[in-house]
Amino acid sequence: MLQPPPAEPGMREEEVDTPALILDLDAFEANLDHMAGLAAAAGVKLRPHAKTHKSLVIAHRQLARGAVGQCTQKVAEAEILAWGGVLDILVSNEVVGPRKLARLAALTRIAQVAVCADHPDGVAAIETAAEAAGTRLTVLVEIDVGTGRCGVAPGEEAVALARRIAASRHLAFGGLQAYHGRAQHKRSPEERAAAIAEAAQAAERTVEDLRRAGLDCPIIGGAGTGTFALEAASGVFTELQVGSYAFMDADYARNDPPPPFRQALSVLATVMSVPRDGAAVVDAGHKALPTDSGMPLVSGRDGIRYEGPSDEHGRLVIEPGADRPRLGEMLRLVPGHCDPTIDRYDWYVGVRSGRVECLWPIAARGAMA
Amino acid sequence: MLQPPPAEPGMREEEVDTPALILDLDAFEANLDHMAGLAAAAGVKLRPHAKTHKSLVIAHRQLARGAVGQCTQKVAEAEILAWGGVLDILVSNEVVGPRKLARLAALTRIAQVAVCADHPDGVAAIETAAEAAGTRLTVLVEIDVGTGRCGVAPGEEAVALARRIAASRHLAFGGLQAYHGRAQHKRSPEERAAAIAEAAQAAERTVEDLRRAGLDCPIIGGAGTGTFALEAASGVFTELQVGSYAFMDADYARNDPPPPFRQALSVLATVMSVPRDGAAVVDAGHKALPTDSGMPLVSGRDGIRYEGPSDEHGRLVIEPGADRPRLGEMLRLVPGHCDPTIDRYDWYVGVRSGRVECLWPIAARGAMA
Repeated sequence: MLQPPPAEPGMREEEVDTPALILDLDAFEANLDHMAGLAAAAGVKLRPHAKTHKSLVIAHRQLARGAVGQCTQKVAEAEILAWGGVLDILVSNEVVGPRKLARLAALTRIAQVAVCADHPDGVAAIETAAEAAGTRLTVLVEIDVGTGRCGVAPGEEAVALARRIAASRHLAFGGLQAYHGRAQHKRSPEERAAAIAEAAQAAERTVEDLRRAGLDCPIIGGAGTGTFALEAASGVFTELQVGSYAFMDADYARNDPPPPFRQALSVLATVMSVPRDGAAVVDAGHKALPTDSGMPLVSGRDGIRYEGPSDEHGRLVIEPGADRPRLGEMLRLVPGHCDPTIDRYDWYVGVRSGRVECLWPIAARGAMA
Repeated sequence: MLQPPPAEPGMREEEVDTPALILDLDAFEANLDHMAGLAAAAGVKLRPHAKTHKSLVIAHRQLARGAVGQCTQKVAEAEILAWGGVLDILVSNEVVGPRKLARLAALTRIAQVAVCADHPDGVAAIETAAEAAGTRLTVLVEIDVGTGRCGVAPGEEAVALARRIAASRHLAFGGLQAYHGRAQHKRSPEERAAAIAEAAQAAERTVEDLRRAGLDCPIIGGAGTGTFALEAASGVFTELQVGSYAFMDADYARNDPPPPFRQALSVLATVMSVPRDGAAVVDAGHKALPTDSGMPLVSGRDGIRYEGPSDEHGRLVIEPGADRPRLGEMLRLVPGHCDPTIDRYDWYVGVRSGRVECLWPIAARGAMA
């Protein structure tokens, strides 16, 4: 069941029902503009990641600022985007299973769709689905550029897989997927630079090998909010797959220096108990605020710390001298990790100057398949 | 947008789209029966917690086995239950904010509704809402029996708050909420017994104080899946508020001894990459499997360990000698913590003997307000 929106346009922020996902529209728009400008200046394309925002509204606002399309991780996300008019979609990882592949192939009737592969059996399954649907699917080869998750080895193994794709009547070789997830949260600029230099070299070498094999790479994709400037400047990557930049979160803010974007996302919570001196409890716990990347930060209230969640409660510690929150007071909490937080909610509550300006459905919330 | 069901009745489990929340119906039914029997034998009432199952179907199956009603943590959960025919609901924590309280008061037209309070200002706000709606709300006093979260101190402070409730024309005093959340996952039986002995003494003393003040306690509620046998045997508690027993999870299984229930819940995931020897990746990460209480366990496959999630990926380590999973193979993962896992999904896929028997909507998924 879709949850009803927690607010209506025109309300003051204090009237919003909690917990609610607040989007600070000034900061959000500044973030979109800033990234669009940086990508244009670097001469690379922007293909923002919908796994973060999960929203058709936001996808279209990114496209209106020059993005060439969107990334997704899941077929269900790609469906929601394509059904909502996003016409160039890259599923930026492997898709396995005949039902999923049949759905993906069906989407080629209304949108440009590409998907990644890292195994000959995976390519064969995509081929079977494309043939059965009487269509052609674009397939990128994912190479492991240092994260140690999915992907074939750069170089020879990648070339062999690309040849396999290019040789199929039902497939088109789309290029390389070279995302270095593990580099995004490396804290020092030196560590990030070293990781992306290695990734760019691996990608460049593979592009060269492919060229010698007679295969062009229409897309060389990668990058996240922690490292995008490095990929953009590498001269190798053609598309940036950033997602978090639109929102930021407490964990990205711990990078040195933090990415050049404003905190635009928070969870609005209500103080539901003030049981003892030095303690308060808000109505946002595990289910409202995942803590896989650390505790949320209490925005604009020095000396108040989110100590820990239980399922529906968040325990706050109020340091001596800090203003104790009142029962019923609302606090903005900045999530540790934006992606799984957004995916908990059905609605963005867009706020500007203390007023609710818009409600945007999080259409791909829970689209895991 | 509600996600479409990942399966249809009659399918084999291998045909289910992943990630999917699998309910092993034999184990689930055995768990419901076993708990109903234990409560009946101990002479205490069962009021299972809907914050765990989030499902009208499951609520009604618990009621059919003798449960007196349901607990919720949220007004939005209470609404979904009441609208679906659950007619006795206790919101087992504080509710703060006039919009939420107005909604709660409105529910009294179709169901018996009770809520907790731990502050005179909270009681006054509940009174205002009840008066405005022309109804009467039942209010329990929450006492802190050792968890250090919400709740007034047992004894005098609780009596003062109960008097305040009982003195109102718009409120009825409903008894004590005395849940010891922190005791549930204490690992040794001695630690749990000590914690619940203390909780029971605090509750008993407060009941005595209330009796001297002329106030009866229709409900003395508490207990979770880790300690329910202790509360049931205490002679103090009248209602058990257990939730996880219906499903179990990997974290409860680490209690010594584990609660006497079968693992009934798993996330079905597909192997989407087999990039290297000793490694595989499944299509279930942070968004499919919260890891706040530890990593999920790979069911029935010795030597395969879920090492860690990223947003949509789960990295598996395959120990030397263990069977390497095939690309496209499906694995059942037992979640670390059942509550936030269930709340990620729109559907239970009920499975018996390898076949999908039913699809049940998780109607209160995301009902956080």
